[in-house]
Amino acid sequence: MARRVPTGPVLGRALSILEAFGPRHTRLTLTDLARRAGLPLSTVHRLAGELVSWGALERDAAGRYSVGLRLWEVGSLAPRGLGLRERALPYLEDLSQVTHENVQLAVREGAEVVFVERIAGSRAVPVHTRVGGRFALSATGVGLVLLAHAPREVQEEVIGGPIERFTAYTVTDPQALRRLLADVRANGFAVSDRQVTEDALSVGAPIRDPHGAVVAALSLVVRHGTVSPHALAPLVLSSARAISRTLT
Amino acid sequence: MARRVPTGPVLGRALSILEAFGPRHTRLTLTDLARRAGLPLSTVHRLAGELVSWGALERDAAGRYSVGLRLWEVGSLAPRGLGLRERALPYLEDLSQVTHENVQLAVREGAEVVFVERIAGSRAVPVHTRVGGRFALSATGVGLVLLAHAPREVQEEVIGGPIERFTAYTVTDPQALRRLLADVRANGFAVSDRQVTEDALSVGAPIRDPHGAVVAALSLVVRHGTVSPHALAPLVLSSARAISRTLT
Repeated sequence: MARRVPTGPVLGRALSILEAFGPRHTRLTLTDLARRAGLPLSTVHRLAGELVSWGALERDAAGRYSVGLRLWEVGSLAPRGLGLRERALPYLEDLSQVTHENVQLAVREGAEVVFVERIAGSRAVPVHTRVGGRFALSATGVGLVLLAHAPREVQEEVIGGPIERFTAYTVTDPQALRRLLADVRANGFAVSDRQVTEDALSVGAPIRDPHGAVVAALSLVVRHGTVSPHALAPLVLSSARAISRTLT
Repeated sequence: MARRVPTGPVLGRALSILEAFGPRHTRLTLTDLARRAGLPLSTVHRLAGELVSWGALERDAAGRYSVGLRLWEVGSLAPRGLGLRERALPYLEDLSQVTHENVQLAVREGAEVVFVERIAGSRAVPVHTRVGGRFALSATGVGLVLLAHAPREVQEEVIGGPIERFTAYTVTDPQALRRLLADVRANGFAVSDRQVTEDALSVGAPIRDPHGAVVAALSLVVRHGTVSPHALAPLVLSSARAISRTLT
């Protein structure tokens, strides 16, 4: 048996170092890293050295740290990340080539949406999502699907607010959001009409595991006024069902 | 100043737990995890609990552990992983739609290729690569490009062998491989002719950073005998240059 080692502080600190990185902070100096992780320089220097030697972090020629390819490789084994994305990709590409619109695949993490894949349409309305990026559950097509099928406590947390407003059309009234979610469950799909940006409409549909649980959502995002949501829904629903069928 | 904590064993063990996962081992019981990580059950139980509470691991209804979405999110910040892939994707999609062949994007990690993206051609020869998967540097189009531009010691390590054979056409003779790499540098692109599977040919080209260093490679993989490598090379080279131009 190996000797028992106190784990709390060390692992927690190593994870704080990983947390210091973000979409606008992909390369950090040792000083940035210490400041953002809230840890002493000497501690960060030592832990970052270990993380570099394993490959979880990399250092560039200027001495700045970034997330390492090795961590990306391990992350790529997450069933809800790349695993889902790999199964869904052929269907996402078909949907993209048939519609030339934006196609998005997302999962729920706590009270937020995480985008797992995004194929930008070649002549589509601009969207600002990023693979690995997060967004509020209450506004997007994929978010409304995931929220409508989330555990009751997550729904109440989001409905309890505050509900973030993005445009004049964002549903921020708790009762209106509750009705919207009931509609999503009744219709089998969600429509987000200019709730995120004034020019976009998205239609989302649930992806289910073999037990029927909603594990992800798929959406098409189009320019508002160009296509009726009811024309898009069968397309999104049938693709979402095709992806669900691969999750065995 | 925080108290100094011995870091070696704890962080090392936590990383061993992450290393226990693999493409054919995405969901592991506690017992599997302990066996594959080479650690006592009690240690793994404690560390896995911490990793779950942070989101680096997730547990399913059956109690099995998998890599968590949170780790995938952090991994997605790796400049050589998703960062590169996001910049390259529009060019990869163009190349895919123009050729309907397999398009691959890869980087070097030590003496191996890591595939960062792969778009399967709709009527293309089957390939067995997986995003996040690894392969020998010596055989594929992307691998030959990355090896030809690797540091001298990596080249000597691979040439020093043993060089793995996949087909009757795989170049395994050290002197022949050395000449092949010199050709790659002289021509600016690599041709792997049936070196991985008997029916596939791939043409790879380097992607360079603003300092001219080769940081990734792009390839088209086609059925052997259907297209001349010299017809493909300009297409792969020009796409690789377009991607290089985005790396500023």
